[in-house]
Amino acid sequence: MKHVAVFGAGRIGRIHASNLAALPGVQLDAICDPSAEAASDLAQSLGAKVSTIEAVLADKQIDAVAICSPTVTHSDLITRAAAAGKHIFCEKPVDLSVPRAQACAEAVKAAGVACMIGFQRRFDPTFNEASRRLAAGDIGNAEMLIITSRDPGAPPAEYIKGSGGIFRDMLIHDLDVFRWILCADGDEAAWLSAAGSVLTDPAIADLGDYDSTAVTIRTRKGRLCQINTSRRAAYGYDQRFEVLGSKGLLQCGNQTPTGVVQSDASGVHSDKPEAFFLQRYAAAYRLEIEHFFETLQSGGVFRTTVADGVAAQKLADAATQSCQSGQPVAL
Amino acid sequence: MKHVAVFGAGRIGRIHASNLAALPGVQLDAICDPSAEAASDLAQSLGAKVSTIEAVLADKQIDAVAICSPTVTHSDLITRAAAAGKHIFCEKPVDLSVPRAQACAEAVKAAGVACMIGFQRRFDPTFNEASRRLAAGDIGNAEMLIITSRDPGAPPAEYIKGSGGIFRDMLIHDLDVFRWILCADGDEAAWLSAAGSVLTDPAIADLGDYDSTAVTIRTRKGRLCQINTSRRAAYGYDQRFEVLGSKGLLQCGNQTPTGVVQSDASGVHSDKPEAFFLQRYAAAYRLEIEHFFETLQSGGVFRTTVADGVAAQKLADAATQSCQSGQPVAL
Amino acid sequence: MKHVAVFGAGRIGRIHASNLAALPGVQLDAICDPSAEAASDLAQSLGAKVSTIEAVLADKQIDAVAICSPTVTHSDLITRAAAAGKHIFCEKPVDLSVPRAQACAEAVKAAGVACMIGFQRRFDPTFNEASRRLAAGDIGNAEMLIITSRDPGAPPAEYIKGSGGIFRDMLIHDLDVFRWILCADGDEAAWLSAAGSVLTDPAIADLGDYDSTAVTIRTRKGRLCQINTSRRAAYGYDQRFEVLGSKGLLQCGNQTPTGVVQSDASGVHSDKPEAFFLQRYAAAYRLEIEHFFETLQSGGVFRTTVADGVAAQKLADAATQSCQSGQPVAL
Amino acid sequence: MKHVAVFGAGRIGRIHASNLAALPGVQLDAICDPSAEAASDLAQSLGAKVSTIEAVLADKQIDAVAICSPTVTHSDLITRAAAAGKHIFCEKPVDLSVPRAQACAEAVKAAGVACMIGFQRRFDPTFNEASRRLAAGDIGNAEMLIITSRDPGAPPAEYIKGSGGIFRDMLIHDLDVFRWILCADGDEAAWLSAAGSVLTDPAIADLGDYDSTAVTIRTRKGRLCQINTSRRAAYGYDQRFEVLGSKGLLQCGNQTPTGVVQSDASGVHSDKPEAFFLQRYAAAYRLEIEHFFETLQSGGVFRTTVADGVAAQKLADAATQSCQSGQPVAL
Repeated sequence: MKHVAVFGAGRIGRIHASNLAALPGVQLDAICDPSAEAASDLAQSLGAKVSTIEAVLADKQIDAVAICSPTVTHSDLITRAAAAGKHIFCEKPVDLSVPRAQACAEAVKAAGVACMIGFQRRFDPTFNEASRRLAAGDIGNAEMLIITSRDPGAPPAEYIKGSGGIFRDMLIHDLDVFRWILCADGDEAAWLSAAGSVLTDPAIADLGDYDSTAVTIRTRKGRLCQINTSRRAAYGYDQRFEVLGSKGLLQCGNQTPTGVVQSDASGVHSDKPEAFFLQRYAAAYRLEIEHFFETLQSGGVFRTTVADGVAAQKLADAATQSCQSGQPVAL
Repeated sequence: MKHVAVFGAGRIGRIHASNLAALPGVQLDAICDPSAEAASDLAQSLGAKVSTIEAVLADKQIDAVAICSPTVTHSDLITRAAAAGKHIFCEKPVDLSVPRAQACAEAVKAAGVACMIGFQRRFDPTFNEASRRLAAGDIGNAEMLIITSRDPGAPPAEYIKGSGGIFRDMLIHDLDVFRWILCADGDEAAWLSAAGSVLTDPAIADLGDYDSTAVTIRTRKGRLCQINTSRRAAYGYDQRFEVLGSKGLLQCGNQTPTGVVQSDASGVHSDKPEAFFLQRYAAAYRLEIEHFFETLQSGGVFRTTVADGVAAQKLADAATQSCQSGQPVAL
Repeated sequence: MKHVAVFGAGRIGRIHASNLAALPGVQLDAICDPSAEAASDLAQSLGAKVSTIEAVLADKQIDAVAICSPTVTHSDLITRAAAAGKHIFCEKPVDLSVPRAQACAEAVKAAGVACMIGFQRRFDPTFNEASRRLAAGDIGNAEMLIITSRDPGAPPAEYIKGSGGIFRDMLIHDLDVFRWILCADGDEAAWLSAAGSVLTDPAIADLGDYDSTAVTIRTRKGRLCQINTSRRAAYGYDQRFEVLGSKGLLQCGNQTPTGVVQSDASGVHSDKPEAFFLQRYAAAYRLEIEHFFETLQSGGVFRTTVADGVAAQKLADAATQSCQSGQPVAL
Repeated sequence: MKHVAVFGAGRIGRIHASNLAALPGVQLDAICDPSAEAASDLAQSLGAKVSTIEAVLADKQIDAVAICSPTVTHSDLITRAAAAGKHIFCEKPVDLSVPRAQACAEAVKAAGVACMIGFQRRFDPTFNEASRRLAAGDIGNAEMLIITSRDPGAPPAEYIKGSGGIFRDMLIHDLDVFRWILCADGDEAAWLSAAGSVLTDPAIADLGDYDSTAVTIRTRKGRLCQINTSRRAAYGYDQRFEVLGSKGLLQCGNQTPTGVVQSDASGVHSDKPEAFFLQRYAAAYRLEIEHFFETLQSGGVFRTTVADGVAAQKLADAATQSCQSGQPVAL
């Protein structure tokens, strides 16, 4: 039985805590959150106790922690948890600063603990099957990747202010998908060009950020990746990618709440995509935390690491720089 | 907290037991099965104890039982559980004999306990949304229902022997869907005609059964329903229905394990339907047992009852008779 | 160069005349219609002359006639055209009376002329490809056929009065599809049961007809066919079939005017099916008339004959009788 | 009656000549081609005569010419035809040199003749419906356009040598779609970045060309466009675009030869896209030539002009320059 504590009882903390609590062989011991009420509500509903970070890190019984607190706290908590010998599951990003993220990687390595980063797209059953087939050679050599990533609506300005910008906040996932899908054989980004606009809300421009972006990456092997992103898709959360290979194409489309198709005098109608990430990636969240504990148990290889977090962060930095300067970045 | 025991640790018993065990507010106390090993394995994996039917029925702490044992045991267990004051969730069918099924309905009524029958299709999110829209008038008045119901492969002859025949064993679900969808406003079957063939395995004919059937039902209000069924669909478990209304059409298609679409020199390829009922109705099984306990708690109305089981059984009897005689049956 | 005349300048006459006029190797000489204006308009637009049936049949230059006049005139015109040694393309049905249709078959045979019946579904590229694959064994042996055939709206009562009823007027096509798809290896209908209702307009009941029907056919080899039909589909002309074989399934869905998919706050929307038969079967009409002249030229085998017309008519009679009596018909 | 001659009896010349010959109110008089055999075959099959460019331009009866000869001849033929007072339909591109293309525009203007460029995508029924809905405001303001344009296989090296490179030869169509869809309100490209690779055949690199490209364009209004292109899609001719607006999304997918869907033990299979442009844009070719003559007749506005040809050519030049330099181009 592995004992675990969750840091953060917000939206994503509640998801991970629930999934943890339902895992056989895992005991959710404690919830920590600055809001006593949030911590208490979540702990009670799952049969865990409320605790503090200090107490958790000092508790010899605790094997692992899940860091679901705000981004600014991640690197500090990773470093302290590693020092305390706890295995770590940490939500993305590692840190908005690449050097601090790299420091985390070193701290984890030095402590000899596991640290997995929550790139949940890698655990989505559909995306994962595409990755599997690509690796199996079903469509030959990968040549191009097209990623469509659109949120249903922009977050509040307050959130954007501390987000590090759309490339570090939102595209971090897509940049990780690029690495996962197109660089699985050791290939790497060589050239990146990004363009951005503000088309939905001038307040976003006032914060120096973008709501619509178009990124192109060329790898060392000449593969091409295009990512298109918007903070606002009126029809919901749009999460697709397709990879072209020398022998074919793999496409991963959106998922819908139901499969009902209605035909009437105005046309043929089906469901919009799942509303947002909690719904769209519900299975992925379950499978990712299951993978974390299975791999802790088996001693196998974790499918995401701090190094993946650092690498995606570097690409996000490059995209930010390219978009602001209007010039491509060599990597 | 509701305490519950599960009778039967086979395929469907394991599904219901796992779902029960994960429900907040529900405590899975005991598993009973003639196979000590099956009972013990399941009990252990879910933190329950092994028990006997007698002990469970005598246990004042137990609020409810889930009957997941073979069909032949259903009516006896329903009657005994009702007499012991336990609420009952029972897998379909109530009983292969309509009079015995009716006796169960009376026993349940006399005891004042709840008894819900496991017509899981009514809890499938897609089917359920179609039902909701129909009730909301989104496609006007229902006029026609077309049900496609095909298994991936015939069960062993041994199973068929005790199954009551394809209409009672397999179409029972489709006949319930007919009642649920087309008779929601109090309409009823008035005329039924069934045809059947053996096209897959002569052994099925030797048992006096069919593997391919075509049923037509006309309701009192003149609505028409066609059900086509096969024991063998080479491409998997095919579960669809569509309902035509005066203002439009609602279609419920198959579900697939993943959404990957592969295009290559030989065409555009997507997943086969989910393999069989455990996969296809996984969400429905969760939602149905959740509904059972929520309704016990709230005192609300159960979405399926013994009366539904009896009504479907009568239609299955009529279909059997029509198919054997080659003549329609007036209801 | 083959010379041809068209009898009838109505909706379907105009289609066939235009397609004829565009065929290389075919010269559209004359149009005949009781309405001088209709004949003249059509003739002028296609560079043909207006003529009379008598003159056309007496004209030694004319090789073939296309009979596109009202149903009641078909058998008379077939007989006369055959006697005059003209090859014949005739719109369905041959005649509403089976004996008269059989007399046509004999007249055609005696005259040694070709006579093809306009079962245009057999020339639809999608339906045709399904037929080809079935014949090629791609899904093994055919076991079940499900046909969905729904018009966008009922014709005027005046039309229905002379139509011979829904089975002879509308299902004649579907009954021909049944024979084409499920009886391609010489199999034949053995048992037929039909049910019908009036759900759209009581005036249809006053005429002794139905607007909604459900037909089941069992063949000598035990194959099953279900046909569901409605005079009114609010969402347009619904023309689908699927055939289940021992190794798979072939499905033919609807066609749409465009492929635009629109996603917005209310869902994901695509086109309704093509409006009605002229649009849906536009390619089929072209290909069928092309086949007629190619086969005349090559001396090959016509894909539909008067015998097919007679056979479909017999099934339509049986369906009418079954629906009215509530009893199945043995064939 | 408009009299017309076709210059060029190759693949595309044959298409246009056939479509012309079938148009009411249009008389195809003459075919000109350096290959006497090609000219004669085509002329004979369509009832036209073989002629020479000189004779056609001198013939006062000829109202219009369709230029379907190789790209290098376009600007010369446009200039001469304009000087001879003939209206002109010219296949894309106007000329590989922007100055020469501009000279054509001036020659046409000076002569007061019509000159329409064969950007057939603008006449595809599906693309056209998307354009119509966008203009109607159905998805609000256009924000992003994603174009996928992949050929089934690279042309022979000999062709590539004289093609002007992939941007001028293949992306010219996509760049015109960009202008048509995203700049319909007078917006214009402001910034363009292109990346390219050779992934299919090193011979293409030897010619200084690319087979895989990724273009991003930012307009003055901040709209973003991404175009991904490959010379080789193993699954056929892939022609899609989608436009994101403030209120929704419009998607135009591929078209298929038939609508048959086959389900079997290996999955669910549908047709590959149409093989190549002659099949994919068959309807567009018909509609484009129809528009040309209708507009000549009505005196209305042509949907494509030499100016569109020049504008697309400028974008192709910019993309070529950006791809070769690795730097974006300001427009």
